[in-house]
Amino acid sequence: MSAPTATRNRTTLAMLAEEAGVSLSTISKVLNGRTDVATDTRKRVERLLDEHDYRRRGGANRGSACIETVFHELWSIEIIEGVEQVARENGMTVQLTVSGDRHGPGPEWIEGVLRRRPAGVVLVASGIPEEVRAQLKSRQIPYAVIDPSGDPLPGVPSIGSANWSGGLSATRHLLELGHTRIAMVTGPEDIMCSLARLDGFRSAMASRGVPVREDWIFTREFDLEGGRSAAEALFSGSDRPTAVFCGNDLQALGVLEVALERGLKVPDDVSLVGYDDRPVAALTHPRLTSVHQPLAKMASAAARMVLNLAAGLPTDQRIDLATHLVVRDSTAAPPAA
Amino acid sequence: MSAPTATRNRTTLAMLAEEAGVSLSTISKVLNGRTDVATDTRKRVERLLDEHDYRRRGGANRGSACIETVFHELWSIEIIEGVEQVARENGMTVQLTVSGDRHGPGPEWIEGVLRRRPAGVVLVASGIPEEVRAQLKSRQIPYAVIDPSGDPLPGVPSIGSANWSGGLSATRHLLELGHTRIAMVTGPEDIMCSLARLDGFRSAMASRGVPVREDWIFTREFDLEGGRSAAEALFSGSDRPTAVFCGNDLQALGVLEVALERGLKVPDDVSLVGYDDRPVAALTHPRLTSVHQPLAKMASAAARMVLNLAAGLPTDQRIDLATHLVVRDSTAAPPAA
Repeated sequence: MSAPTATRNRTTLAMLAEEAGVSLSTISKVLNGRTDVATDTRKRVERLLDEHDYRRRGGANRGSACIETVFHELWSIEIIEGVEQVARENGMTVQLTVSGDRHGPGPEWIEGVLRRRPAGVVLVASGIPEEVRAQLKSRQIPYAVIDPSGDPLPGVPSIGSANWSGGLSATRHLLELGHTRIAMVTGPEDIMCSLARLDGFRSAMASRGVPVREDWIFTREFDLEGGRSAAEALFSGSDRPTAVFCGNDLQALGVLEVALERGLKVPDDVSLVGYDDRPVAALTHPRLTSVHQPLAKMASAAARMVLNLAAGLPTDQRIDLATHLVVRDSTAAPPAA
Repeated sequence: MSAPTATRNRTTLAMLAEEAGVSLSTISKVLNGRTDVATDTRKRVERLLDEHDYRRRGGANRGSACIETVFHELWSIEIIEGVEQVARENGMTVQLTVSGDRHGPGPEWIEGVLRRRPAGVVLVASGIPEEVRAQLKSRQIPYAVIDPSGDPLPGVPSIGSANWSGGLSATRHLLELGHTRIAMVTGPEDIMCSLARLDGFRSAMASRGVPVREDWIFTREFDLEGGRSAAEALFSGSDRPTAVFCGNDLQALGVLEVALERGLKVPDDVSLVGYDDRPVAALTHPRLTSVHQPLAKMASAAARMVLNLAAGLPTDQRIDLATHLVVRDSTAAPPAA
């Protein structure tokens, strides 16, 4: 790694140091992410680096051989696969960090990144504090967020998927099979994708003139227990739905468990649709009909986005990839009344 | 990253260059993994570096902030979690590469590693060619293999798990429930863990004096279809086992599918035990009794092993971590005859 000496637009570090009223050594410390620089000084230097479009000799992060991928917790191997594929196509590897914090990686992380100098950063379902964004920007390290929750941060490049359309297609499938008594288990209301999937469900029902039973809409956590608790209520009497659409696959597996415990056959007595199409959906019995959320493709798209940004190419601010329904064995026509 | 100038034992690169009869620039190329050095020359230099216990100024890979993890294909998020946890404890991150080759990472990989200078390398279920080992050794980059297949390479530090004991405990569990008509679906014979699990099964049967029905031992691929094809044969007539022990969870799920298709209840008509205890085992219905292979712990142990080696601490050459049976809902007493 060569020492920073000149910029693309010929601003030298010496000129920047003079303008900022600091020593060259202080500029170098800021560039290298050292913490022994006063916050005010660091911010002033970062602003100047940014204004002068400072780049290291040879362009931003030349020779950088990795894409940094940040999870708040590891939850999807598909995402790692997607980033890794693009990294490999570009002769790079994946640098993986787990922040443990949904709101974004902390200050100790940014120090590491500035040392490692990745070609770009892909954040998975994670916020990114304003200050961290400024630090990455001033070092010309591009970033993008994989955002399955459907709640993009303003000004942050991100990749999501079509949640509303997913909810719509799942519900249409059930309607086309002849179901009208359809319940929905939806995820927490503060996660936007829950609302989008529910709205897709409502729109599909409305477009066929099928009324929504409000007492059959259950807001539950995105886990097995969430599905179980909704199903306990749904299957407790004789007035029950012939189909249940769940906001994710784990909820659907919870509903499946309770249905089987109650002696209900899936799909003969009750049809079931999940969401996400995680690998488990193809391994249950019956195999689960589910809306495929293309996590690997979303991850590849995010990786390409940061590499495009790194190369100075234009990119979209927000891309939503298509979802599609994968029909398996958990859905069929409703039982004869 | 500072330029290599002196070694711990005061061998200078100039001395090495003289001894090898090459220029300083050639030595530097070899150290940096460049390919424009004749193979003979490279090998001679590597041998000398090794003999002189050459270390970069400040010790081997000082300041290295990552553990390189190499998969031939990505198949386990538990393994990534295990390495990442140890990396985080040590203020490091995980550098992930996918080689696409079960026999070991290729020459393009070693170039990248020598550039990235990880603290150590963890190889997942992958070989490591002699030449690559020599190159890592001469740069003081330690490595270890996570080896679930139970077939350690001689001279390569590795972590496995107790496959024979796993087979034994699964079979004992079935015997204790009262089963004597027990079939086994085992994995391919060229994967050592298949043989170890089968031998554990045989030993448990023998120790209770229960004869093994050789026509109920099926050698199949470690996948859903492997389990299905064995089950088609096992469940075709009235002379059928009351329990099936499978070499992995996917095989067990294949057996479960066929059992349910044939109207056999699990565990009422037939008990079922899987192996590995992958996350899916807790999500099927019935939930699968399975032998837990501690992949995350194996990965953590491998990461600690390379960090110990990097620090010059003694470590074992081979560690097998314990497996244990997780009893869920797919096993019960056999049906009354």
